[in-house]
Amino acid sequence: MASRPAIQDIHEAAERIRPWVHRTPVLTSTTLNSMCDADIFFKCENFQKSGAFKIRGAANAIFSLGEKEALKGVATHSSGNHAAALALAAGWRGIKAYVVMPENAPLVKKEAVAGYGAEITLCESTLQGRETALMQVVNRTGASFIHPYNDTRVISGQGTAALELCDSVPDLDGVIAPVGGGGLLSGTAIAVSAVAPETLIFGAEPENADDAYRSLRAGRIIPSENPDTIADGLRTSLGGLTFPIIQKLVHHIMLVSEEDIRRAMRLIWERMKIVVEPSSAVPLGALLAHRQTLPGKKIGIILSGGNVDLSTLSWDMKNRTTQQ
Amino acid sequence: MASRPAIQDIHEAAERIRPWVHRTPVLTSTTLNSMCDADIFFKCENFQKSGAFKIRGAANAIFSLGEKEALKGVATHSSGNHAAALALAAGWRGIKAYVVMPENAPLVKKEAVAGYGAEITLCESTLQGRETALMQVVNRTGASFIHPYNDTRVISGQGTAALELCDSVPDLDGVIAPVGGGGLLSGTAIAVSAVAPETLIFGAEPENADDAYRSLRAGRIIPSENPDTIADGLRTSLGGLTFPIIQKLVHHIMLVSEEDIRRAMRLIWERMKIVVEPSSAVPLGALLAHRQTLPGKKIGIILSGGNVDLSTLSWDMKNRTTQQ
Repeated sequence: MASRPAIQDIHEAAERIRPWVHRTPVLTSTTLNSMCDADIFFKCENFQKSGAFKIRGAANAIFSLGEKEALKGVATHSSGNHAAALALAAGWRGIKAYVVMPENAPLVKKEAVAGYGAEITLCESTLQGRETALMQVVNRTGASFIHPYNDTRVISGQGTAALELCDSVPDLDGVIAPVGGGGLLSGTAIAVSAVAPETLIFGAEPENADDAYRSLRAGRIIPSENPDTIADGLRTSLGGLTFPIIQKLVHHIMLVSEEDIRRAMRLIWERMKIVVEPSSAVPLGALLAHRQTLPGKKIGIILSGGNVDLSTLSWDMKNRTTQQ
Repeated sequence: MASRPAIQDIHEAAERIRPWVHRTPVLTSTTLNSMCDADIFFKCENFQKSGAFKIRGAANAIFSLGEKEALKGVATHSSGNHAAALALAAGWRGIKAYVVMPENAPLVKKEAVAGYGAEITLCESTLQGRETALMQVVNRTGASFIHPYNDTRVISGQGTAALELCDSVPDLDGVIAPVGGGGLLSGTAIAVSAVAPETLIFGAEPENADDAYRSLRAGRIIPSENPDTIADGLRTSLGGLTFPIIQKLVHHIMLVSEEDIRRAMRLIWERMKIVVEPSSAVPLGALLAHRQTLPGKKIGIILSGGNVDLSTLSWDMKNRTTQQ
């Protein structure tokens, strides 16, 4: 499935996954608007099934499989939202999901993926360890490998979030999506450039994982090596399928400091009263830092997910004074 | 304003405050439904203006004032959501709000109230200190005292949340609201008993601040003394106006342990991806602990607010493994 997806693929994906995923709400915040001097429309994929936009691509891939192919199940290597989404969607179709995870993955992640019914294979925590383990699983089971982002069906599914956003808010000046492997951003770019050709498309990327920024400047993929960012969903690098789409359709990649990511995440929790994961806060961080360079004021932001491990947060709020 | 409010007062309050407050959404969660073996409908007052239901009562009180009375402003003693709400609503009407706060109130609270434009008077952190300071402010300014809960206009305003909930979900078996001073619960009870007389009305209260439970058993108000609970909005005790309403209309007060409050709060953040304050989690905590004793399955819960001081939470999530 290496052909480049087109808008028709995204429309078909939208039809295919409609019975399974939420049409997530678009929220606004007066306070954040005034802080950014813009009208911001947040597409809330944190409320999506499985807690992230990833279910769109996973469901589209799984429901695109032929009957015979599907019976053998699906496989992937991932320790995050794609694995959980693939496991959930496989359950909907009644087929098996095989997930290769590094042995040092957090227990909460293993439990989430296992909770959706996937069969987990642990492997060494190296790229080679993952790929070897995945190949063994695929050879043994005949399962279809569903790559987290470098897959036409996955990209087409991810593009359906922006399709809904443009339908809800038709005349946006710009759309900002976070960029890691580029599945969400490339799907967003195909969707927005087709249905709202006047709207500019931006990627937002952590300074500490700036492979998309550097790759676009260099004109070839330059992966990040062991990037260190709180935005854990964005540590991966562009793939051979996502890179050329982004190169062609995305106006600019905005870089965001760790401090601005944390600040934006806290603002979203505090002001909008919604839980988002760090990766989701990167576009708002970009807007807070770069708003003066943005043309126009009506900006769509894709809040990619809300899967935060709350066990890492301290919950001691006992020492607050009495209130009414 | 010591007369007992009736359903007509709540309908009038709803009309009066409609231009100013949100009709908040009602959310559901498949996971929480299956954990509780019930269909739960969460009325999300955490998304309300000022971050809590308190703006309903405050706005109703302020827009009920005659022109001459209003010009002198409003006053209250509070360090929490009522103070912020009163300040915000006073700004809408273009009048002054005077707020008496204990000198040891957290800076974040003082800033929130000041941010809405109120004039703050600091006082000693005792009931007597507050009351003396309030009396001095009222004598000096002629401002109208708006009690946080023992006020017909305030109770009527708070009842509008349940009115909307019953309108959105007409055939609830039960409604659960948290109970502190009883403004929300008594307003809820008047609204629900009038528009959905078959629906049972429950209060949910921390075990560690169980004055409503004890007062109903004793048949007279028995205040809590220095209650120690994470649900900081529920540390106050019933008042002379709220007690008889609750006595007459509320089916049962459910007590909830601190552990169950924390567990319910975390579940709401994790599963629903929304930020609620500890007081908001008390009804779900009750449902998780007492579900076997509840008649029927279709339960409305009022999530009272989302004002949590996130500076008390640790934000170090750097040490998570790479994901996709």
